[in-house]
Amino acid sequence: MKTRSLFEITKLFPDAKVLHCPDPNLIHFTEVRPLSHTEGEFLAVLNSKAFVKEAKSSLAKVIVTTEELAALLTEARVCLIVKNAELALIEILNYVHPPAVPNGKISPHAIIAPSAKIGSGTQIGHFVTIGENAVIGNNCIIADGVKIENDVSIGDEARIGMNCVFYHGTRIGNRFTVFGNTSIGGDGFGFTFANGKHNKIPQVGKVVIGDDVEVGSNCTIDRGALTDTIIGNGCKFDNMVHIAHNCKIGNHVIIAGQSGLAGSVTLGNHVIIGGACAISDHLTLVDGTIIAGGSSLRTSPKTKDVYIGWDLGLTYPEFQKYRVNVKNIVHLNKWIKRIKDLESKLGIQVEDPKD
Amino acid sequence: MKTRSLFEITKLFPDAKVLHCPDPNLIHFTEVRPLSHTEGEFLAVLNSKAFVKEAKSSLAKVIVTTEELAALLTEARVCLIVKNAELALIEILNYVHPPAVPNGKISPHAIIAPSAKIGSGTQIGHFVTIGENAVIGNNCIIADGVKIENDVSIGDEARIGMNCVFYHGTRIGNRFTVFGNTSIGGDGFGFTFANGKHNKIPQVGKVVIGDDVEVGSNCTIDRGALTDTIIGNGCKFDNMVHIAHNCKIGNHVIIAGQSGLAGSVTLGNHVIIGGACAISDHLTLVDGTIIAGGSSLRTSPKTKDVYIGWDLGLTYPEFQKYRVNVKNIVHLNKWIKRIKDLESKLGIQVEDPKD
Amino acid sequence: MKTRSLFEITKLFPDAKVLHCPDPNLIHFTEVRPLSHTEGEFLAVLNSKAFVKEAKSSLAKVIVTTEELAALLTEARVCLIVKNAELALIEILNYVHPPAVPNGKISPHAIIAPSAKIGSGTQIGHFVTIGENAVIGNNCIIADGVKIENDVSIGDEARIGMNCVFYHGTRIGNRFTVFGNTSIGGDGFGFTFANGKHNKIPQVGKVVIGDDVEVGSNCTIDRGALTDTIIGNGCKFDNMVHIAHNCKIGNHVIIAGQSGLAGSVTLGNHVIIGGACAISDHLTLVDGTIIAGGSSLRTSPKTKDVYIGWDLGLTYPEFQKYRVNVKNIVHLNKWIKRIKDLESKLGIQVEDPKD
Repeated sequence: MKTRSLFEITKLFPDAKVLHCPDPNLIHFTEVRPLSHTEGEFLAVLNSKAFVKEAKSSLAKVIVTTEELAALLTEARVCLIVKNAELALIEILNYVHPPAVPNGKISPHAIIAPSAKIGSGTQIGHFVTIGENAVIGNNCIIADGVKIENDVSIGDEARIGMNCVFYHGTRIGNRFTVFGNTSIGGDGFGFTFANGKHNKIPQVGKVVIGDDVEVGSNCTIDRGALTDTIIGNGCKFDNMVHIAHNCKIGNHVIIAGQSGLAGSVTLGNHVIIGGACAISDHLTLVDGTIIAGGSSLRTSPKTKDVYIGWDLGLTYPEFQKYRVNVKNIVHLNKWIKRIKDLESKLGIQVEDPKD
Repeated sequence: MKTRSLFEITKLFPDAKVLHCPDPNLIHFTEVRPLSHTEGEFLAVLNSKAFVKEAKSSLAKVIVTTEELAALLTEARVCLIVKNAELALIEILNYVHPPAVPNGKISPHAIIAPSAKIGSGTQIGHFVTIGENAVIGNNCIIADGVKIENDVSIGDEARIGMNCVFYHGTRIGNRFTVFGNTSIGGDGFGFTFANGKHNKIPQVGKVVIGDDVEVGSNCTIDRGALTDTIIGNGCKFDNMVHIAHNCKIGNHVIIAGQSGLAGSVTLGNHVIIGGACAISDHLTLVDGTIIAGGSSLRTSPKTKDVYIGWDLGLTYPEFQKYRVNVKNIVHLNKWIKRIKDLESKLGIQVEDPKD
Repeated sequence: MKTRSLFEITKLFPDAKVLHCPDPNLIHFTEVRPLSHTEGEFLAVLNSKAFVKEAKSSLAKVIVTTEELAALLTEARVCLIVKNAELALIEILNYVHPPAVPNGKISPHAIIAPSAKIGSGTQIGHFVTIGENAVIGNNCIIADGVKIENDVSIGDEARIGMNCVFYHGTRIGNRFTVFGNTSIGGDGFGFTFANGKHNKIPQVGKVVIGDDVEVGSNCTIDRGALTDTIIGNGCKFDNMVHIAHNCKIGNHVIIAGQSGLAGSVTLGNHVIIGGACAISDHLTLVDGTIIAGGSSLRTSPKTKDVYIGWDLGLTYPEFQKYRVNVKNIVHLNKWIKRIKDLESKLGIQVEDPKD
């Protein structure tokens, strides 16, 4: 851990100003940590009113924050005032922990088909295989153990995680990042039952992925059946996300961990799907729809609300009312008894519903 | 994309007839696509009344369909009339996109134990390892990066996806297909708590898989504890399916993506489990049971109905009634208030349910 | 399958005694199987009153059990009486199926960075890569295809499954076991939306795992954002478990298959999470909390009860009442009709709840 001065950091932000600090050369830190961290000399970021209390008692040597939030710190603390604290955090982290850059070496233990094209500056790890007519862009890192079949194309500046596999014909844009053990382009799940067995429908579509997409570890993205599975630009998927065949996903879509789309789902731009969600086949979510984590969706919501809840198509405000009533459901039989007692008192006879 | 004539296709179906087409040699297409496709020259399949409207406006050069469905197309369209449109689609796709066949080459970069037996015609990829006494059948494709431990046996015509792993003693029948990064034969999850810690119960059963089974990408099938985990013939599993130790799965079972069976689950023949389902340990599903996607099952249904719903053991018709009532649950507190108002009006005093 | 005598087994348990058997040298078995097994000569274990009936009709040659349970077997059966039948089972299984021990060989087809340190007795498989400054302990087995980045440390006696991947800086204690295709140390899922896109927040924390941890196949454990993801001693995770960034997990925690923790979840010691559970971000479960399989948790339970149910925060007794009332929910509209009929009878007019 290298010691750095606040002065170094100010150079990253020409428009930033320093508060309560006569000489930024004399303020030092070794790490970037959360406000609540308790050890070492660290810089921290205050990016929300929710954390002002934490900031006040923070042991941080420097707090990076906005003018507005700094004004809420009653004590005189060393602050670096920036326009957007989250973006500043990213810049500082990239300075303190510079991301790996491709070393341009192709492992002698990689097996690359003669017809494959590898861009300049690209690093290919050990025990990688790259098939015929595959095209890998410039300045990529293809980590150890990656397997790439024939006719795959991957754009520039890709970061392909260890032991990922890419089936034939997969086409991926620039600045693609994926973590370990993800499988892209395996067959979609399509069978037709006849003659006493499930007969496989050949899956002849491809996977087509745009620019600036990030995919986590151990994800699966299936090739299309008769058309392609399509993922737009700027999408970000967490670990163990499953995208079935023929899905069409717009731009800047977020899907959190362990969520899955069944076949032929269409997602508009800027859709956000929380973790552990299941989206049924052929549903459509319009631009900007948000599905809360842990939800199952069985019908297409009509609007771009926040949806939540098991299979119930509830919006978030409805769900909050639903949740209040769970304690009533637990006693529903007692309330039904009271309805029947009332009827009995009034001499009304009604037949009870039968299953 | 090669141009093909309808005449070529008719040769695949000696009993088929062509409608509205004087010369099938003059009808050409390059791809097989859905009816709704909008680009290029393509053949499409009409396999259900639900798509007749789409077929009417389809840009397909040829529509493959049945006599019954063709009769619903009011316009004179070029049709190939077959007995079963879905099976015809499969045949046409296999003709237009012939599946990969093993090249019979064993990579010099594979490491195969001296006692392992490799069948004739089998292709072994780069960076594969195959352990002692393993037996691989004829005409298999073992893709790059696959790892096979000692005493594994795999039948003829297998298609083993990149980077899959097989633990010792796993036994698999003929025509097995599996996609990338799947793990078969890892230990079941068995511990007993004693002396302040979870003590591992050695898992000494095997995984035994029948013929004609297909498994998706990134699945896990665990070895049995004291007996074997058994999967019958003709089963098809989608991506990220998890089969725990000691499960006994019948023939022709379908399990869709991200569903899991806990330990010692028994599935009869022709069971269908939708995506994102969780089946609790030791449950039994009788032949033909269907579990709708997104369901959790905590008790064994007695009959072969369609079951759905979180943990509620609802059949599909019951679930439909349940769903209608969700909007009532949201207001249940108001209905309860009205019961109490009625009681008050009648001078009845009842104590409310507690906790 | 080697034939073994009961006499051999008695030597493992100096304090054990044999019932109904004049000469343990004359009692033989070849396998350890469940009581209900129907083939071959086998030893079985009776570890609970629930299985006494099965034990009575068991075809086992020997039953290993406790004094208390043996007393419930009315017939004179050959028994080995031990203090703890489950722990005895473990000992017998380890005797009959001795676990693999490292052969101390380093494959010439592994690529190990010059600065990496490999402990004595450790076995390194084929096509393994180990990065700069990595440290692997003594007597480990690193299976074929494992990829270990720079600065990873793994303690003694590890069992690392085929094709697992470890990202840079991951730190793991002694006696770590993991099965195939698991990914440890990939980036956490952290973005901030600005300038029309999701901007990646560099993930600069590590994964830190204690001693005696076991992780299943195809799991993912993400590195922390600004702090570490921490897993205590003695934790056991099943297949496809997902641990997001910044989680802090205590000691001896159990997480069953396909369950996931979102970011910054804190689990106390001895927490048990069933299969297919989703725990929302930033929740805390106190020591000893149990979450039943198939549950989603959206708020932190205050106590160490058993919790269950979709998102409802129900304890197990509440859930049982809830479940009874599901049949009432299905008819809730009819009960509401009856409330309204009562009101009408009494001349009461109430406006119905809207939306």
